[in-house]
Amino acid sequence: MAHCTTLSSENDFLQLIHKHFPNSHERMLIGRGDDCAQLRGQDSIVMTTDIFLENVHFRRSYFSPADIGHKALAVNISDIAGMGCRPTGFSLGLIVPDEHSGSFMQAAEWDEFFQAMSALAAEHNLPLTGGDLSLGPCLGISITIWGEPGESGRVLTRQSCSPGDVLFVCGDLGLPRAGLLALEELGPEARKLYPGAVNAHLRPLPRIADGLQLAEIPGVHGAMDISDGLARDLPRFIGPACGADLNISAGEIPKDVRTYTQDNGLNPLHFTLLGGEDYALLGAASPDALDALKTHLPHHTVIGTVTATTALSLNGEPLDLTGFDHFATHE
Amino acid sequence: MAHCTTLSSENDFLQLIHKHFPNSHERMLIGRGDDCAQLRGQDSIVMTTDIFLENVHFRRSYFSPADIGHKALAVNISDIAGMGCRPTGFSLGLIVPDEHSGSFMQAAEWDEFFQAMSALAAEHNLPLTGGDLSLGPCLGISITIWGEPGESGRVLTRQSCSPGDVLFVCGDLGLPRAGLLALEELGPEARKLYPGAVNAHLRPLPRIADGLQLAEIPGVHGAMDISDGLARDLPRFIGPACGADLNISAGEIPKDVRTYTQDNGLNPLHFTLLGGEDYALLGAASPDALDALKTHLPHHTVIGTVTATTALSLNGEPLDLTGFDHFATHE
Repeated sequence: MAHCTTLSSENDFLQLIHKHFPNSHERMLIGRGDDCAQLRGQDSIVMTTDIFLENVHFRRSYFSPADIGHKALAVNISDIAGMGCRPTGFSLGLIVPDEHSGSFMQAAEWDEFFQAMSALAAEHNLPLTGGDLSLGPCLGISITIWGEPGESGRVLTRQSCSPGDVLFVCGDLGLPRAGLLALEELGPEARKLYPGAVNAHLRPLPRIADGLQLAEIPGVHGAMDISDGLARDLPRFIGPACGADLNISAGEIPKDVRTYTQDNGLNPLHFTLLGGEDYALLGAASPDALDALKTHLPHHTVIGTVTATTALSLNGEPLDLTGFDHFATHE
Repeated sequence: MAHCTTLSSENDFLQLIHKHFPNSHERMLIGRGDDCAQLRGQDSIVMTTDIFLENVHFRRSYFSPADIGHKALAVNISDIAGMGCRPTGFSLGLIVPDEHSGSFMQAAEWDEFFQAMSALAAEHNLPLTGGDLSLGPCLGISITIWGEPGESGRVLTRQSCSPGDVLFVCGDLGLPRAGLLALEELGPEARKLYPGAVNAHLRPLPRIADGLQLAEIPGVHGAMDISDGLARDLPRFIGPACGADLNISAGEIPKDVRTYTQDNGLNPLHFTLLGGEDYALLGAASPDALDALKTHLPHHTVIGTVTATTALSLNGEPLDLTGFDHFATHE
């Protein structure tokens, strides 16, 4: 490997993957290299799949190979966090850009890619159990990840809140979107102006510890990870039968969002609601769980309450979310 | 949906998926629509991922949408068969060609695609537990599938055979390769000349029942699914410490392979060894298990024996497999 600058065969890739990802783990009875891996059973399994595709979810012009390797896994882990669970393993489908595509990656770049992915996997004690490689027209990563509930055995779902519940968030809203837009406009230079926003977009940190804590608090009635922005994800979370009164003060908006929206003449509050790729956790809890929340998750932010009507309000004004559906065309 | 000829949003896709794939199943505690699905636990889990990509694994010019939907899932199920296990669920990562790509699919084509995939899923009682959609430059399917051992609890692996073991195959070797080459040369017309070969390439049938039967026979020492051809997969199966004496008579070569190789001046035996995408099961058993094999899997074909040296022979002649590595460049 040391003398190669390009990976010329499936075997080169497998060697590089073996270098970065241990092929033994207490949860793997049979590791990579057979038709399937065999894993120890779990009482129950939560499972999800995310695709992370060049020029759709990331651009090579401002994502380093390490950023890509990290974020591809991070967004999957975040879905496990949204269930209040702990990830226990993942598999990797990799579309490798061929030499004729503009996206070809050198061996050293692949090394960085796998290094960053394996560092995040190690942080969560996740075995890579297998996967598949295919040449293709662009770089693409399809990860399936699974996990299990924590101590309480509880799984936190959407649409399990009730009128009167307090809505809260763990994590920053709008920050990754400011990073995305700044990177699209300015390229890597954006980091100088909006370091927190750029870092939040390139290197999201899944909130597994927060999710597990939430699942241990009986008064917490549900959670999800906000991946499409609060405006789009809130209705999915509260469900069609409820509404919400949101209260978000300007002081709760992250600094880089304030700066970015000011620099660009945008409404900071609407920008925060719009968000996208926040990977913050949205939760609902009965008011009597607030003390436990303050004790165990002091960094949470209360953003409103669930109401019995289907109406939405923001800081006392009616809120119409239809204008916020920025995903009708894919961005 | 009835009035749409194109699927214009993620929601259109989700509706179509819900139409074809039930969202309740005895194994699903939480179905599609949350951050994760939740599945009932299993004593142990076998798991694998396969990518199925346009112009790498299939061409739209001779694969119908239904063929693609079927085969994408079939090749994954086959990996579970190779472990002697039963599939219990799958997730789907789908790269959807955008309107500007030459691969754009109409709503009716997506309907056929999902119809065929759901028919195969139903045949194996498999819930689709979730997945992800992304626009992209070509059609791509990344499936992760999992399963569990059958009655005996046994899982059949590679490299678990011993010298003296009988090598056998369930399924036809070389037939899908004849179909692939004929389709590449002749397009859909190939079906008239080589119907069995074309069908084997477009619509492989995973051999779950065979694999489960094999796992119940104690003298069967291992199995794998032959996806890259016998020449490439045999060394992976017997491992570096053993060799094999193969005996394959011309009479055992499928009719369409004989016709195709005769039409094209090719060596039918070498063509059969080369194969590719056979999705036959390769197994090893102690000689005293042959009676049980004959009883429970009468359609198996004995192809040789495992030897204590690392040498290989075919019908009494030394066999050098290095010339068979047709995958150094991806085809």
